[in-house]
Amino acid sequence: MVRIPIHRLQSDLCQISFELVAECPETGARAGLLHTPHGTIETPVFMPVGTQATVKGLTQRDLAEDLGVKILLANTYHLFLRPGHELIRKMGGLHRFMSWPNAILTDSGGFQVFSLSGLRKITDEGVIFQSHLDGDLHTFTPESTVDVQLAFGSDICMALDECPEYPVTHEHARQSMHRTVRWAQQADRHHRLRMAGIAARHALFPIVQGSMFPDLRAECARALVDLDSDGYAIGGLSVGEPRALSMEMVQATREILPRQKPRYAMGVGMPKELPEYVARGVDMMDCVLPSRNARNGYLFTSQGRVIIKHARYKDDARPIDENCRCYTCTRYSRSYLRHLFLAGEILFSSLATRHNVRRYLDIMCEIRHAIISLTFPDYLKCVRSAALDAE
Amino acid sequence: MVRIPIHRLQSDLCQISFELVAECPETGARAGLLHTPHGTIETPVFMPVGTQATVKGLTQRDLAEDLGVKILLANTYHLFLRPGHELIRKMGGLHRFMSWPNAILTDSGGFQVFSLSGLRKITDEGVIFQSHLDGDLHTFTPESTVDVQLAFGSDICMALDECPEYPVTHEHARQSMHRTVRWAQQADRHHRLRMAGIAARHALFPIVQGSMFPDLRAECARALVDLDSDGYAIGGLSVGEPRALSMEMVQATREILPRQKPRYAMGVGMPKELPEYVARGVDMMDCVLPSRNARNGYLFTSQGRVIIKHARYKDDARPIDENCRCYTCTRYSRSYLRHLFLAGEILFSSLATRHNVRRYLDIMCEIRHAIISLTFPDYLKCVRSAALDAE
Repeated sequence: MVRIPIHRLQSDLCQISFELVAECPETGARAGLLHTPHGTIETPVFMPVGTQATVKGLTQRDLAEDLGVKILLANTYHLFLRPGHELIRKMGGLHRFMSWPNAILTDSGGFQVFSLSGLRKITDEGVIFQSHLDGDLHTFTPESTVDVQLAFGSDICMALDECPEYPVTHEHARQSMHRTVRWAQQADRHHRLRMAGIAARHALFPIVQGSMFPDLRAECARALVDLDSDGYAIGGLSVGEPRALSMEMVQATREILPRQKPRYAMGVGMPKELPEYVARGVDMMDCVLPSRNARNGYLFTSQGRVIIKHARYKDDARPIDENCRCYTCTRYSRSYLRHLFLAGEILFSSLATRHNVRRYLDIMCEIRHAIISLTFPDYLKCVRSAALDAE
Repeated sequence: MVRIPIHRLQSDLCQISFELVAECPETGARAGLLHTPHGTIETPVFMPVGTQATVKGLTQRDLAEDLGVKILLANTYHLFLRPGHELIRKMGGLHRFMSWPNAILTDSGGFQVFSLSGLRKITDEGVIFQSHLDGDLHTFTPESTVDVQLAFGSDICMALDECPEYPVTHEHARQSMHRTVRWAQQADRHHRLRMAGIAARHALFPIVQGSMFPDLRAECARALVDLDSDGYAIGGLSVGEPRALSMEMVQATREILPRQKPRYAMGVGMPKELPEYVARGVDMMDCVLPSRNARNGYLFTSQGRVIIKHARYKDDARPIDENCRCYTCTRYSRSYLRHLFLAGEILFSSLATRHNVRRYLDIMCEIRHAIISLTFPDYLKCVRSAALDAE
């Protein structure tokens, strides 16, 4: 094995760079620029989820040109099982395979192993799991998931983590968190070795775990900060806990995670929660909600939700959201969309997803603008009072 | 009831106009221009099918701007049942309801009543049928289907016809054809009355029937020509008969149908058959094949078919068709499309439909160009020998 001195590796590790543009003096919310090999991303950013190398219902052109999406998330677990990372590598990597010009972040596969696969067995070495597709057994190790994500050519990779269910005991959470830290250290070491040999730049983010225990979250973050990573993810949220608890867990590590590195809250959230995470120092988020809810006829608007199947929309000639400039809202009525939904037409999914993703991106734009123009606390107040009104 | 002298009605009946641009001296194949209230259409034309006011998987922008589709077909039967013609009328007609800027042709509903609905009863007055959606009973009469299509605001409406299954006896086919002629006469009378009162222009095409009997086809066509309609449809094809027989049926009426009126062969055909219909004087065609086959992973190319699930495409970096300039072929590989298909992703349907429809439109372009440049007989020879090679 090629041995490279640690300081050499460290200096090579400008995989991605993060530039703080503005910070809210009151809340600490941040606006930044995340530079990647596939373009610069304005943060805070919401990343649409392209589980199987596609955001369901949208073309890559819809995403990049119409919606202006600069970074997508793809799922390591799903793509590892089908079509397989070796095929994707052979086809020139994930960007080329799916014809996506902008940045890609891939998760570690950990969350899906724990939520989707049948039988699974966790050891200190990694996790053995059964494919939800055909029942075949596979193994993920901290090293193998780095290799899989490098085969994809992801701009931002995640270190394998263990994502405990909710609730668990403090002791269980502690042991699990320690394993996640060890795995992150192994993944980091392996990633540095792999990076030393190649010119391409691929960042690796370790993931803060610790269930709903602030002390464990803090301990985990402190251990991960020692890795001097390109950025840090906060995982293990959205597993059924009350929202206030998720926020508390993000809060628990905000003073520990380095200010100059991007922070990514995984798998969140509802529209009204987006500014809450940002108010707690989060720069990146992803969630299946805008696309999944779209397909189920649940539409997000600047005036609240629209459940498109409701009879009241039968002859409603208005767009989903009169304040929205997406293709769906400029061309189609609620009445037509309701018809497509009830008829089970593919076009509904496509138009609804386009709108919901646009809604999320618009919210992120508003948030960023508010931070830069120093009006974020007012913006947050506004969102909170609107959310209270809606309850 | 307002009574209007027949000659007044006749002179008002410039619903659409058809202009012959070129005619193949050898085969009689025609290139023309079909002028409608929603734009001019180059013929021969292939009309994609938008059964439920959507071509499955494509947005109206994809169709109009990307693919250059000038006329769509929508299904009267489906839209009558859901969302209902009264709702569509209330929403400003079908063009506005589905946000479609170009022309729309609607079928009579007859074919679907005979192929989709459960119980049905045909009388001289019309047909009583059971909805395939909820089992409710409905009635179509020659007059009511004109009213339904006028509620849609269709540029081109079809007269109610009876579409016998294949095979039937000569006597059955004769009785059925006579009923179709009577219905066409009633529809025509009703349509002229309705048109007299409004400024908008909506054409009505009667449909030639007669099963697979050339004498009945000819008799039917002669009776319909007396109506001096805006165009003529040839129905009752693609009901399971051998292809040679379909061609013979089209041939049976080509000298009877007026040269200066457009002719529409309903529900056809495979790519290699398109020029065959045109060679028999057909100007308009529609078929679900390009879109339905696309969704099933059956792709048409200039080099033959591609069954995308086949393992040989697993790592095939080429587009579906290297000669195609559609969005799908300029951006995505067979390998990626196969992955989307196997993963059951919506995007597959969308990309595949886009390509197949484009393939059909390209073929129609080639045919039209060949007619105008007087090379159609050579083109036809070429297509026939390629088809033989493929068998």
